[in-house]
Amino acid sequence: MSQLSVNHLLGIKYINKQDIDLIFETADHFKEVINRSIKKVPTLRDITIANIFFENSTRTRLSFELAEKRLSADVVNFSAGQSSVKKGETLIDTVNNILSMKVDMVVMRHPNPGAGIFLSKHVNASIINAGDGAHEHPTQALLDSYSIREKLGDVKGKNVVIVGDILHSRVALSNIFALRLQGANVKVCGPKTLIPKYIESLGVGVETNLVKALEWCHVANMLRVQNERMDISYFPSTREYTQQFGINKKLLDSINKDIIIMHPGPINRGVEITSDVADSDQSVILNQVENGVAIRMAVIYLLASKIK
Amino acid sequence: MSQLSVNHLLGIKYINKQDIDLIFETADHFKEVINRSIKKVPTLRDITIANIFFENSTRTRLSFELAEKRLSADVVNFSAGQSSVKKGETLIDTVNNILSMKVDMVVMRHPNPGAGIFLSKHVNASIINAGDGAHEHPTQALLDSYSIREKLGDVKGKNVVIVGDILHSRVALSNIFALRLQGANVKVCGPKTLIPKYIESLGVGVETNLVKALEWCHVANMLRVQNERMDISYFPSTREYTQQFGINKKLLDSINKDIIIMHPGPINRGVEITSDVADSDQSVILNQVENGVAIRMAVIYLLASKIK
Amino acid sequence: MSQLSVNHLLGIKYINKQDIDLIFETADHFKEVINRSIKKVPTLRDITIANIFFENSTRTRLSFELAEKRLSADVVNFSAGQSSVKKGETLIDTVNNILSMKVDMVVMRHPNPGAGIFLSKHVNASIINAGDGAHEHPTQALLDSYSIREKLGDVKGKNVVIVGDILHSRVALSNIFALRLQGANVKVCGPKTLIPKYIESLGVGVETNLVKALEWCHVANMLRVQNERMDISYFPSTREYTQQFGINKKLLDSINKDIIIMHPGPINRGVEITSDVADSDQSVILNQVENGVAIRMAVIYLLASKIK
Repeated sequence: MSQLSVNHLLGIKYINKQDIDLIFETADHFKEVINRSIKKVPTLRDITIANIFFENSTRTRLSFELAEKRLSADVVNFSAGQSSVKKGETLIDTVNNILSMKVDMVVMRHPNPGAGIFLSKHVNASIINAGDGAHEHPTQALLDSYSIREKLGDVKGKNVVIVGDILHSRVALSNIFALRLQGANVKVCGPKTLIPKYIESLGVGVETNLVKALEWCHVANMLRVQNERMDISYFPSTREYTQQFGINKKLLDSINKDIIIMHPGPINRGVEITSDVADSDQSVILNQVENGVAIRMAVIYLLASKIK
Repeated sequence: MSQLSVNHLLGIKYINKQDIDLIFETADHFKEVINRSIKKVPTLRDITIANIFFENSTRTRLSFELAEKRLSADVVNFSAGQSSVKKGETLIDTVNNILSMKVDMVVMRHPNPGAGIFLSKHVNASIINAGDGAHEHPTQALLDSYSIREKLGDVKGKNVVIVGDILHSRVALSNIFALRLQGANVKVCGPKTLIPKYIESLGVGVETNLVKALEWCHVANMLRVQNERMDISYFPSTREYTQQFGINKKLLDSINKDIIIMHPGPINRGVEITSDVADSDQSVILNQVENGVAIRMAVIYLLASKIK
Repeated sequence: MSQLSVNHLLGIKYINKQDIDLIFETADHFKEVINRSIKKVPTLRDITIANIFFENSTRTRLSFELAEKRLSADVVNFSAGQSSVKKGETLIDTVNNILSMKVDMVVMRHPNPGAGIFLSKHVNASIINAGDGAHEHPTQALLDSYSIREKLGDVKGKNVVIVGDILHSRVALSNIFALRLQGANVKVCGPKTLIPKYIESLGVGVETNLVKALEWCHVANMLRVQNERMDISYFPSTREYTQQFGINKKLLDSINKDIIIMHPGPINRGVEITSDVADSDQSVILNQVENGVAIRMAVIYLLASKIK
């Protein structure tokens, strides 16, 4: 059987094209199983997985938890609000303690970029990065590419524009790595102050005009506006943002192309996209959520097979 | 096999007498199974249920969770405190996202009356209303009637008085619908300002004198006083309330009848009822809690059989 | 089969030497099973356990939860933050309600000393005390002794010093009872104001000089400093505490003995012990955490066998 080249999923930056292909084929299998209404496979009966979330994320935690339960793994949840982190314990101590209880795999969301990488060097368990600050969110990028492949047959050669606050987005960075690895053409579009200077060195084009970006692309991945950031000086106001970088049905229809609309959720309806766009046939937003469980099952299954 | 007339349990208002009979017969079966110390039946192995609580309710959530686990369903919990609801997501988006992860059934507690009804029209899953504002709490009413039937053989023809803040109580409204459907005679008793004007149109009598109400009834269902409401102008003080509408042992003994005392919990001991009443042989309060799990198993089981 | 002399584990004070031996032999068995990577034994399929935590304790709750799941018990979690305790319900009502749902065993953490004892007299379920104020934390003491036995072959005749705030520590009290029962020699070491007057009546020596204590002992159990207490008048400052009662590598090496270092966690690195001590070969801190799951499996298994 094929194996991943890595023992952890810390970021798309650390895996290769063969890894992505293997994850997608494995996800195909799990998606088919789920669609036959077989909710549970007895694959990982002797694996215990800890979901350690130092930041709230209902959607991602739920998706991982369902993936783990459908693989019949034992699941324990640990969230920072209830945790001894408050007592001043270090990250390594927290995780080492959990691992001493014979936990095999850690899914971690952490506010600090690189937290998962740091951890993987100091503890003896398989780590899955479920978002580390503004750095990476690899399973999100995998499910995004998987959803493009499902809709368009292949990711290779497709034009994808990522719209929004590129500077602070782990979703953007992981998507750029994943899309480039699979041979897609990538542009980013957003306010100039929110596009990092190094972006072109990643082989990514910059387009500050949304209409031109849409005319060019097959897929538009609309990032979530972080309202809590919008009062900072170098950010536009929400109203300005929506006028320049929001998509409504009228704009979408004027482009006269079957652009696929993606969004990592949760949507600010009326800000990044209007409701008639979010709920249109061009939107694959709910497919992304559905595919998230299959992708996470695949990643967990493949990493677990390297533990045994 | 018999089936429910509905695909959701949104309120007692939307089901019929045959539905109640079917739920009770099914609950009889599950109660017998549990009493033989068989805690788990492998009935719903391929069903995933999400408990979505936008309001705290340890007791109801725990009862549903145990019912689900005893049916061998997979369970995921989602509570508003940890949720993306805080990020401004709409109810439909939240639930649609959860459903896209192949969740089959949603148990929802929500502060807005009608939230479950609204949801059932917009999402593709079986919805169980676990309390929607001051509207309905159907499983509570079912377990209350089931407990009366268990104690008195039948609900039909029995006199039931519901005591307390009728105006704001989903427990009262669901109980009125359930009791009337089964042919019980129902009166409400409480401060005039807390009895809604439309109550008589539901075939319900009004009695503001507790002693007279007790002399008339076979069953007194004592609603919980919401202390947080007691400082509003049209409410009595807690002391006034207890003097006029609280039951103590002396009062109960003076009636010289085997009145059954019910309470949906949690009890304010010394307010609605004193401890010697709550813990007396006339109280069926803990039977109500026990029956809650069997009733919820029955409702989930019957709704799940309509999904497949 | 041998049985425990008790139906609850409320404190080490209430069990005997034979009980400890039986728990350790049973834990040996479960530890071997886990080490063969068999994470789950189908022993308690029909047992439902409620973890009721009125105080936060990620580490202890997680350890119990894993122990329960590995015995295939059904688990429900109830924490005070989400609970009807806030609504003013009494402890007995809360627990009786949970038990009415056919819960067989309660693991409880509570801020009040004696809460578990009180409960065991009023409810019909097996109670495990997971920490009750400054009173007892019996499973912690059991796993501590089990870790000493694992490292040194036996607890009998060994010299153990417990270092820190003895006055407020349930870990200290439970350890003293457990160690004395097994024939260990016990001394406590700490600031005079934090050593209770009755300590010598328990057969325990007092040593206020850490170097002398270390020269005497085979095992040093370093209690966690509760920083939140350190501003109270009769407490030393954290800096003073560390100077007098903290262990660093230089001090440890100067003793020139293979003293075993224990800590109930979470560690304040640099306060009670420095990192080079915590992570040294003399430290069994992570073994304690690992043994905690096996010990808790043993306690739950043995108490459950008395229910049936």
